[in-house]
Amino acid sequence: MSALPAAAFPPPLPAAALAGALDRIKAALGPKGWTDDPDRTGPYLAEQRGRFKGRSPLVVMPAATEEVAKVVAICAEVGLPIVPQGGNTGLVGGSIPFEEGREILMSLKRMNRVREVDPGNHAMTCEAGVTILEAQQAAERADRLFPLSYGSEGTATVGGGVSANSGGIAVLRYGNMRDLVLGLEAVLPDGRIWNGLSGLRKDNTGYDLKHLLIGGEGTLGIVTAACLKLYPRPRDVQTAYVAIPSVAAAVELLGRLRAASGDLVTSFEILPRLGIEFATRHIAGTRDPLGQPYPWYVLTELSGGGAMAKSSGAETPLRAALEEALGQAMEDAIALDATVAQSGEQAAQFWRIREGMFEAQLPEGGSIKHDVSVPISKVAAFIATASDAVVNLVPGCRPLPFGHVGDGNIHFNVSQPLPLGDKAATAAFMARWDEMGRVVHDIVHAMGGSISAEHGIGRFKRADLARYEPAVALDAMRAVKRALDPKGIMNPGKVI
Amino acid sequence: MSALPAAAFPPPLPAAALAGALDRIKAALGPKGWTDDPDRTGPYLAEQRGRFKGRSPLVVMPAATEEVAKVVAICAEVGLPIVPQGGNTGLVGGSIPFEEGREILMSLKRMNRVREVDPGNHAMTCEAGVTILEAQQAAERADRLFPLSYGSEGTATVGGGVSANSGGIAVLRYGNMRDLVLGLEAVLPDGRIWNGLSGLRKDNTGYDLKHLLIGGEGTLGIVTAACLKLYPRPRDVQTAYVAIPSVAAAVELLGRLRAASGDLVTSFEILPRLGIEFATRHIAGTRDPLGQPYPWYVLTELSGGGAMAKSSGAETPLRAALEEALGQAMEDAIALDATVAQSGEQAAQFWRIREGMFEAQLPEGGSIKHDVSVPISKVAAFIATASDAVVNLVPGCRPLPFGHVGDGNIHFNVSQPLPLGDKAATAAFMARWDEMGRVVHDIVHAMGGSISAEHGIGRFKRADLARYEPAVALDAMRAVKRALDPKGIMNPGKVI
Repeated sequence: MSALPAAAFPPPLPAAALAGALDRIKAALGPKGWTDDPDRTGPYLAEQRGRFKGRSPLVVMPAATEEVAKVVAICAEVGLPIVPQGGNTGLVGGSIPFEEGREILMSLKRMNRVREVDPGNHAMTCEAGVTILEAQQAAERADRLFPLSYGSEGTATVGGGVSANSGGIAVLRYGNMRDLVLGLEAVLPDGRIWNGLSGLRKDNTGYDLKHLLIGGEGTLGIVTAACLKLYPRPRDVQTAYVAIPSVAAAVELLGRLRAASGDLVTSFEILPRLGIEFATRHIAGTRDPLGQPYPWYVLTELSGGGAMAKSSGAETPLRAALEEALGQAMEDAIALDATVAQSGEQAAQFWRIREGMFEAQLPEGGSIKHDVSVPISKVAAFIATASDAVVNLVPGCRPLPFGHVGDGNIHFNVSQPLPLGDKAATAAFMARWDEMGRVVHDIVHAMGGSISAEHGIGRFKRADLARYEPAVALDAMRAVKRALDPKGIMNPGKVI
Repeated sequence: MSALPAAAFPPPLPAAALAGALDRIKAALGPKGWTDDPDRTGPYLAEQRGRFKGRSPLVVMPAATEEVAKVVAICAEVGLPIVPQGGNTGLVGGSIPFEEGREILMSLKRMNRVREVDPGNHAMTCEAGVTILEAQQAAERADRLFPLSYGSEGTATVGGGVSANSGGIAVLRYGNMRDLVLGLEAVLPDGRIWNGLSGLRKDNTGYDLKHLLIGGEGTLGIVTAACLKLYPRPRDVQTAYVAIPSVAAAVELLGRLRAASGDLVTSFEILPRLGIEFATRHIAGTRDPLGQPYPWYVLTELSGGGAMAKSSGAETPLRAALEEALGQAMEDAIALDATVAQSGEQAAQFWRIREGMFEAQLPEGGSIKHDVSVPISKVAAFIATASDAVVNLVPGCRPLPFGHVGDGNIHFNVSQPLPLGDKAATAAFMARWDEMGRVVHDIVHAMGGSISAEHGIGRFKRADLARYEPAVALDAMRAVKRALDPKGIMNPGKVI
């Protein structure tokens, strides 16, 4: 299958012009900076879930911003499209070329230097190819916290995270990548380098260009480095696993915990009973932390610290506040049972359940996934309505809504009906992805929600964006795209 | 004086065409929606500090988004420029028409409804004309905090604050207005309404248009409403007034207090000795909270709360953490003396000194002001270098650098040399504003700082932006402006 949106592309290059441009790019980068060996290009051209697999005449791996600029300048001159790529952990086909092989692929992974850590400014500057995990570690060595955290953090890169505005499990407290970027360095579609690595907290000098590149999915320029916000490292982390009667109770509990702790709730994740069953069934070493089954669960982490982590008794003030709030919630039937981790190891056990959600679904057959968000106050209504709708559409299917309820971001996944083991039944279920997506997205849209909360648009949701986004916004986006990338060479056919 | 940047404007309208357009606008709004009576238009056409005073054939005051859209559509059709205005508290001429009278002025003050407060979503939706203070009060009635706070909050509006990306005294903890906007409703330069009032925490569906309008100073569209982030209301507020030996000590102390409190520092303001002298000399009811003079002072506020505000002893954990950190700072000579407010009244006394800084400079003769920021780790070097430079330029002048050191944002004000009372001497000093600005801004620029930290560009700093911003960024901003406002009707001649 291919569906090249040809109108988004510049005209195809004649073979001789293409060969000439590729030779100039190779010469500009030197032998370490490129490959066209199919054995080496393969991993760059396929997405991890296998949904997207493209072709490309050349994979380039520049090692410095100036090299990125040289390549982009050549591409701009001749009209050769470029697909930028970070850790290739995306889920929407945003960093994979189309099947026609008309684009070169640019991996930023060789640009992997942490340029500067400035603890006094609570900031650090990382090149695009630094992984999120390496960024966390560099911050920790300077006794600071870089709070962005998500499943693929060991492979996902800063540049990819910026371009996709990645989220994760600490957004409630610290925001998305967008909120953590103080400044950017990027190569714009004409090949010029924009150095906006200011590291400033306040800067009202004209339009904020960095916010176009953040979440721009490489369609407006190539991010080469970012100045990132750091925070004090929390000294006191408290983790609770709470059984609740309903999704509405989760939203109520979140408000109470935010108020009770002085807004120190870092993560607040919801899991249905089915998720606990999947995890304990399929993830080695997990067990239900509570003695009996409940309909819903919340996994929450609060973090604070410094001198406040000390206490005269055995408990820190944060733990005392958490326990008091949970006790009150149980009295008020907002919570049914709860356990606060007694150690880091126990907290890690709680987290293993949540982090195993992706893996735990695999043995349960086909899974149709939706990454959506609604206002937090509408999460309960959304989950109820969407669950009814998908079961109505595919009787016996098993909704597994879980995730970042503190941000209104639900991973609304749906496992196939039982029994398992029939490949044709799985295929028939998975063939209904688009149909189910439409049903779920219509509900999200009617509630003022987003059809792509944190995974982006890429190629996968381009038609959905056109369907759900108002024309006035689409027109403005297209005008911005044309203005900054008039030749259409920057990741064409993605997003807009 | 005028300096109409004619190239930024559409061609002047012939008199008959202008009259026809104004008639259509008046008819669209009805009699309450416009005035051309000079007695009534005056206050809209002059800036509070008196630096800018413009002319306009018509002041319009739409009461609803649809009315804004009607006016903009007419203006777009005929090419009539519009200057949007909120509370008219700006300091850079951003919401005042030029002297030639070619623009109509649109005040959003009649759009003053708080449309919705949603405590469950920690969000509220305010129309553009709601004042910052009214927004704070609406949040408080729902037991929530809207944290934006600054001197002009009683007059400044949500729409103006969004368009200017206003800052203030709680940016360190909660961010600028940009960080507090979840969604916007705006009328774009073609007269269409964009409803982006999503209230979502996570939404990765295409380019983030709201971040172009935020800080766009009305040059890309007219903000008509904003969905704003709310926070739990802090139950425990601790305020300290600390004498320090140097600016560098302030930066060190900030890092310590952030770490010691678990990042609960809300405000962190620096004042020089001269500021305390000005305040105690000129602001009724202020006194130096410490017994002897010191070179520099920090006023800091920490806030947290909920169950953590309770404590077994007389002290809350936050207060204990603050006192312990200050004690350690004194042992290490980072602090020289300190007092923690014993009551809300005493905290208000401390704040009166800081908040009186503008007023306290008035009796001290002419004052040349700079609103700049540098990375926090460079604040000490900036203040030292800039102070030397201005004293070198104007011997005897009195630098008064103060403000939001926690954000790297210094109000680098300079009072005229003594003696006072000679009007010609004051005028001669004030005549050197541009010259001194150049000296200070060159230093800021060399340190990677911003020549407009929180007041914006408007008309006043348009030439400075062109001077200090790299060409690649200016070109990108101009391309965005042309793309979204091809007829150049939206606040032309401002910013870019």
